[in-house]
Amino acid sequence: MKDVIVLFSGGLDSTTLLWLAKKEFDRVVAISFDYGQRHKVELKYAKELAKLAGVEHLIVDVPSLKGITTSALLEGGPEVPSEEYSNVLPITTVPMRNLIFLAIAGAYADALGIDTVGIAVHSLDTPYPDCRPEFITSAQSALTAGSILTATKKVPMKIYAPFLGMTKREIALLGKELGVPFEKTYSCYRGTEPPCGECATCKQREEALKGLL
Amino acid sequence: MKDVIVLFSGGLDSTTLLWLAKKEFDRVVAISFDYGQRHKVELKYAKELAKLAGVEHLIVDVPSLKGITTSALLEGGPEVPSEEYSNVLPITTVPMRNLIFLAIAGAYADALGIDTVGIAVHSLDTPYPDCRPEFITSAQSALTAGSILTATKKVPMKIYAPFLGMTKREIALLGKELGVPFEKTYSCYRGTEPPCGECATCKQREEALKGLL
Repeated sequence: MKDVIVLFSGGLDSTTLLWLAKKEFDRVVAISFDYGQRHKVELKYAKELAKLAGVEHLIVDVPSLKGITTSALLEGGPEVPSEEYSNVLPITTVPMRNLIFLAIAGAYADALGIDTVGIAVHSLDTPYPDCRPEFITSAQSALTAGSILTATKKVPMKIYAPFLGMTKREIALLGKELGVPFEKTYSCYRGTEPPCGECATCKQREEALKGLL
Repeated sequence: MKDVIVLFSGGLDSTTLLWLAKKEFDRVVAISFDYGQRHKVELKYAKELAKLAGVEHLIVDVPSLKGITTSALLEGGPEVPSEEYSNVLPITTVPMRNLIFLAIAGAYADALGIDTVGIAVHSLDTPYPDCRPEFITSAQSALTAGSILTATKKVPMKIYAPFLGMTKREIALLGKELGVPFEKTYSCYRGTEPPCGECATCKQREEALKGLL
């Protein structure tokens, strides 16, 4: 029995991961976070997609990040700029976001007896420190060392991050193959409906889905 | 300039750590968590102690753990037993608690430009997997790998855990030396006022403070 709990935003990447996980695992649980993100509307899409996928879905409130207003991704922070990513740290970086998400997902995993946490980080995410391979490796060690499952059953906690070396285009091609309903996913960092089409995430998404819709 | 953000419950151990940190660091911030703990009353004590110490104090709401009712330490979970710790996993274990706390404290540290997170784990805590030296080491790696401070300023994130090899008695003796107001600290896992005197934490505290009050 292979079980996984997948960090799930309702965007292109994590939706493709959810569809892939459904093929590769016996039990899939999706977990989404309400953390004061400007694009909170994504939770509505996540909910519908999880239903469509037929998987259990947890939406967890994470108010702890709401007080931190240095990030453009959080309400009260600076505006989300209309520009591409560069090698410098993006203003949309949320401090320790993925460690907090992985730790909370790990807590649910431990409570549910699940030994794997899925995350859809990919090669285009590398300007964010908590999306890099070395972060994933060390977070996996921390999850294993802190885990009840590991302490009682000697089962290491694993992070399932199959997109680590992939481009967003490759993820989109895989999604196409898996039958992901792209039109139901949502990725805009500005949180507008329809999506703004100008922020880095909108542009990346458009690029990745070219010819696939 | 040495800065630290200390995980602070208002108990004997973390209060002694706060007093020690005040001696060893230039800027000390205390951070406490409201996570659905049965002994939420500890936050009242934490608040008064932080005021007495003259340090900034953050109280962060962590509702994410409230849905997990497998732990006796959380509201809605099983009762806290009247017994000593053993080598098996205590029923008061909260899944991934310290990883969640360290990640959230790390987020605030990153946002405030602080490079060190303090935690008062000690040798008597080792039945809890997330209190062991190997957990602290790997959590430190994960914090460093995910940190904005590290990505931008090449400063590693450090975990300050000076009590790792110490017994609770040794901590109490150090606290005495530092002038910690023991009578204002609170440690009961059952959350009663006055403390129940029967749970493992009450008994450990009594043992540690013998002759020091």
